Order: sequence, then structure tokens, then C-alpha cells
Amino acid sequence: MSETTTVTDYMETPFTNELLKQMRALDTYDAHAAKTPAETLDPYIMTKERKREIPIVGDPDEITMARVAAYYNALATSIEQRCGLMAVPMIKLTHEGFGRALISVGKLIVLDKTLRDVHRFGFPTFEKMNDQAETLISGALKMIESYTEVAKA
Amino acid sequence: MSETTTVTDYMETPFTNELLKQMRALDTYDAHAAKTPAETLDPYIMTKERKREIPIVGDPDEITMARVAAYYNALATSIEQRCGLMAVPMIKLTHEGFGRALISVGKLIVLDKTLRDVHRFGFPTFEKMNDQAETLISGALKMIESYTEVAKA
Repeated sequence: MSETTTVTDYMETPFTNELLKQMRALDTYDAHAAKTPAETLDPYIMTKERKREIPIVGDPDEITMARVAAYYNALATSIEQRCGLMAVPMIKLTHEGFGRALISVGKLIVLDKTLRDVHRFGFPTFEKMNDQAETLISGALKMIESYTEVAKA
Repeated sequence: MSETTTVTDYMETPFTNELLKQMRALDTYDAHAAKTPAETLDPYIMTKERKREIPIVGDPDEITMARVAAYYNALATSIEQRCGLMAVPMIKLTHEGFGRALISVGKLIVLDKTLRDVHRFGFPTFEKMNDQAETLISGALKMIESYTEVAKA
């Protein structure tokens, strides 16, 4: 049921395209080769039904951690494309799924997130994922505009 | 031989005191309880003789990684004490001992180091360790002075 919902909700945006590239880059075994974009990105969609099936406390597996990394890589690449300066993501996670993700441009931290419950990482819909990405990307670009000297340091 | 050298070379400075505190905080089994400060900090001293005994390529063990973390914690605390703003260290290491260490104050990256060969992490002498720490701390403080608004963001 939730599968159908998320797949039909799929939105093609510059961010989802970037995320798709990142997911495909991770896919060294070509497991995604036959999948549609919506199917490849489907694990990012964490509906209420899906969340209910995942234990509240749990250690994230490597696939989940790679998915989180791909998400921040896609954000960094999107920022880089729009400001022309190199954006570098850095994620530090404990085995329990807590940690911090940041993206730096020069000496400026343009995005800084506390991570928790990474084993349940995801977004209710593709629309929400895109909205949030857009908010984070424009926030980063505003930071760079305000502190250009630091971003170029 | 190198043991004697490093122990007699021991310098008491604000930084080594901070590092000592960090090492003792890590020491949940009280293994350092009976040790002198020089003995506790001795693993940070990587003389040429000691380096020769360690393979060029190798995975850092947990004790080494904890030592690297204690070192950056001590730098962050030293920066914090001297500028009055919270300094947060973040270290990301691969299992092979490559990675990045940074310290942020607000949205400003005040220290950014590429890490490599972490399994051989150390300094030739206590003096060199202190000199380098002082350089890094004053560099960080200068950054904060130049970009106070970002450091307070």
C-alpha cells in the first residue's frame, strides 16, 4: 500500500536527480540498474506505516548509513552547483545512530545537523524531502552570501 | 632509551595539563592512576626509534583513536578557555586511519586537519607537541578574532 503511494508521489527536481546519482554511485553491484528513479529513492520515504514497523531503538546498518551519506553528498553537490565553491560533507555517527552531519564551504559551516535515530532516517513524502532539501540548500547559500570571505577562506 | 628521553623532556604547560585531563577522563579502568603525568602522556611521543617499530601501513586500534580524540578534545578545550566560546571537535576516521579532524566555534571552522597514518600518530618530543598545539590554538583564536560574527553564529 505505502509502496504505491510513495512511487506515485515521486517528484523530479534537481535535488532528487542529484540524490539519484549519489545512490547509483553507491550501487557497486548494479542492484538499482533495473529500477525506476522512484524505486531507487523509495527507501528515503519513511511513511508512518513504515516507521511503525521499525523498532524505536536500533543500530543503523551499513546500507542505512550509506543512504544518509548519499543524502548529505547530494545536498553538498547541490550547494556547490549553485554557489560555485566546493562544499564538503562530513558525517560522524556512533554505532547507535547518533551523531552530527555538517557541510563546510571554505571555513564556513553552511549546514549543521544533529543526527539521531538514523536507523529510521527518511521523509514522509518526496515532496517533504524536496522542501526540506530546498530549505537547507537556500539556508546554506544565504550563509555563503553573508560570509563570503569565510566561505572562500 | 627513548623512554628516559621522553620522560625527562616532559613539559608542564596549560595544553599538556588539558591533555592529561582528557587522557584521565578516558581512563575508565584507572590504568593511569599510578602513573606520573609524563608516563600518562608518553604514548603521544613518537620518536624516530618508535616510529621505526611501527609498520608504515596499518589500521589504528581503538586506543590510538581514543588518543587522537583526546588530543583534539584538549585543543578544543584550550581554545574554548581562551576565547570564552564553545569549541566543538569532530573527527571522522576510516578504519585505515585516514580522515579529517576539525574544531568548530559557532559556524566557523577554526581548525581543519587531514589525518593520515593515524596508527603512527604522535610528536617527536613534548616540546614539539606543545609548540604545535600553541600554533594551532593561536591560529584558531586569530580566526575567531577575524570572523567573530561567524564564531558567534
